[in-house]
Amino acid sequence: MRAVAIIGIGMIPFGRRNEDSLLDLLAYSSLKALDDAGLQEGTVDAVYVANMGAGILQHQTSVASALVDRLSLLPAAADAVENGPASGASAIKNGVLAVASGYYDTVLVAGGEKMREVVGWKATDFVATMTHPEVEYPYGVTLPGMAGMLTRLYMEKYGLTREQLLAVAIKNQQMGALNPNAHVNMLITKEGIFDHPDAVVNNPVAADPLHLYDMCPVSDGSAAVVLCPLEKASQYTQKTPIVVAGFGQATDTHTLQERDDPTDLKAVTLSSQQAFTMAGLTPQDVDVAELHDAFTILEIVESEHAGFFKKGEGGKAVEKGETQLGGKIPINMSGGLKARGHPVGATGVAQVVDIVSQLRHELPKERQVKNAKIGFTLNFGGFGNNVVAFVLRRAE
Amino acid sequence: MRAVAIIGIGMIPFGRRNEDSLLDLLAYSSLKALDDAGLQEGTVDAVYVANMGAGILQHQTSVASALVDRLSLLPAAADAVENGPASGASAIKNGVLAVASGYYDTVLVAGGEKMREVVGWKATDFVATMTHPEVEYPYGVTLPGMAGMLTRLYMEKYGLTREQLLAVAIKNQQMGALNPNAHVNMLITKEGIFDHPDAVVNNPVAADPLHLYDMCPVSDGSAAVVLCPLEKASQYTQKTPIVVAGFGQATDTHTLQERDDPTDLKAVTLSSQQAFTMAGLTPQDVDVAELHDAFTILEIVESEHAGFFKKGEGGKAVEKGETQLGGKIPINMSGGLKARGHPVGATGVAQVVDIVSQLRHELPKERQVKNAKIGFTLNFGGFGNNVVAFVLRRAE
Repeated sequence: MRAVAIIGIGMIPFGRRNEDSLLDLLAYSSLKALDDAGLQEGTVDAVYVANMGAGILQHQTSVASALVDRLSLLPAAADAVENGPASGASAIKNGVLAVASGYYDTVLVAGGEKMREVVGWKATDFVATMTHPEVEYPYGVTLPGMAGMLTRLYMEKYGLTREQLLAVAIKNQQMGALNPNAHVNMLITKEGIFDHPDAVVNNPVAADPLHLYDMCPVSDGSAAVVLCPLEKASQYTQKTPIVVAGFGQATDTHTLQERDDPTDLKAVTLSSQQAFTMAGLTPQDVDVAELHDAFTILEIVESEHAGFFKKGEGGKAVEKGETQLGGKIPINMSGGLKARGHPVGATGVAQVVDIVSQLRHELPKERQVKNAKIGFTLNFGGFGNNVVAFVLRRAE
Repeated sequence: MRAVAIIGIGMIPFGRRNEDSLLDLLAYSSLKALDDAGLQEGTVDAVYVANMGAGILQHQTSVASALVDRLSLLPAAADAVENGPASGASAIKNGVLAVASGYYDTVLVAGGEKMREVVGWKATDFVATMTHPEVEYPYGVTLPGMAGMLTRLYMEKYGLTREQLLAVAIKNQQMGALNPNAHVNMLITKEGIFDHPDAVVNNPVAADPLHLYDMCPVSDGSAAVVLCPLEKASQYTQKTPIVVAGFGQATDTHTLQERDDPTDLKAVTLSSQQAFTMAGLTPQDVDVAELHDAFTILEIVESEHAGFFKKGEGGKAVEKGETQLGGKIPINMSGGLKARGHPVGATGVAQVVDIVSQLRHELPKERQVKNAKIGFTLNFGGFGNNVVAFVLRRAE
């Protein structure tokens, strides 16, 4: 396999983008990534689009073909890749394999979703299309519901507390407020939630024991990366190439009820192990990570399953500040899904974009992990039934 | 790049499959392909699903994750690939790249669509999701409409006749009647159309100058293949491996109106050339081909653009029997989309399955091209805006 480098990144501010079509969103971040990579017209061999909902939300298919024309990249090959909320990482993985094979040299991967068109129960309905259509959703089992059940089990088994969950939200909102691409830039504090007379109203129970501030927002947005063989990176750009050192993807049972122990997210463990093994590195080598905190509980559980903390220790670690900037392993310095937002198809790509920024050392010091050399991303599909992990390394 | 072989194929009869869910359809053909490849449980590294409409038609996403669990292939990686009507070939291409890279050894690619849930204008509406949402469909431009316009231009430019179009339909219905997996097994004859008193009723104009019998049916169905490195094929199966000798994928303008000459389907020419160049072969080396005859006009136009006939000669070639069994280049010995049917996500995979059967010499003599060694498939996405071609070769 040829070593593959990320040589271009692009992202647009996530949030409400009523004025833009899905194709607009994808085109904006793609153009930024192509510019960042220094690619000229006619030099992209293939385009991958990560998207989950265009058929349902925009009544549109063949979005990849449309994007290639929109970007004047004809006759580049173009495919859309879908893996629920992990569509972004899946699309990058397939782009990486395409370059690694030797068949394509330059690949653009753009992830995007325009999902503010549905809010409230309709957003939950859209997201629930990834659950089991016969044994889950018709019985009221939604993604927030599953996250609530996992949280309750974690509380009983490991003594996880509401304060620990809130510590994730506070950290990520704090970082999001510093990230110009983040959807939510509202700061929250422990006092602001627990002592405020409106606390119950401001942060109501959403899926017990999870409250509103434990959930990511519904966002529009897009992000893109450009890949090429590491050995050719210097032909295109003067910037430090970021190497895709390792990646892994693993599946678990489609439904939560089939799992012997629902607190054991096997696909997270396995995909992370695959990525570390391929990279020849361990979780202890990682300087900065982006985890999939669609719910605060997930950041904690993933930080354990990926190998940064022992099982049951993730909540305490957040509380002690070990996942903050300057801590043992800074997590979600972008604000994570919690604050950056979660336009489903964009998220996995955005995670990689944010880690590339970290490894290039180009962020302001309030968010930059000093001398970061190794980064990690985890994109969580379904309710952990299809997980993709990357280990990224700054080329020296 | 490692050479990649197809070692397993599976298909179910296309048609009305009211009793089966989309997942059922995908699972049936997958199990056949896995059995055919001699793969045991736990030996599949990755699964690709080709599908265009699950979100719209089944209100379901993450179908690949669901299929992996359904087939007890956990923790294999799983992604869905979408490229409109060329989703099947795109999924195979990505499976081939994954094996070629050296990262995965055994890959299952399953394509399927359950689209009889919509018929009449709703089926046209579904298919039109691949057209331009602002400048085509709202003005009444549908896929059959585009095919009608292309046909008219071909008639004016090259003297194409209704009889030549009908020759495609007659040939493909004849072959379909011999194919147990074909949706339509009704024989039609020239006399049965032109001389019958009900001819106008039986074969009414659909998109002038195209009539009903120029169109493929709306079908449910699925097909699957198993890929592995050529050098490892004998570890799994005693059957002759079929080598993916070459492949190509090219895009063209999203809308028909942007093309200087709408009779020049550049993406067909380019993807075919890429596939032949990679294989080190020419169109003259091909023993049997499956082309994308969603409309009879397309088989003719593709047979020229892929290099089997000169521009404007394809219609005459069909009329002279050159594309029949025993002719210069037998095309669509499966019955093609016209008779086998066109469950969108399944089609590109079905084409490869049918060519593999030909190259293995396992078809009854009424459909088998004698001593076929080189096969060709062309899967046509959008209205020729994203085309994928394969050259397949019998390993000796």
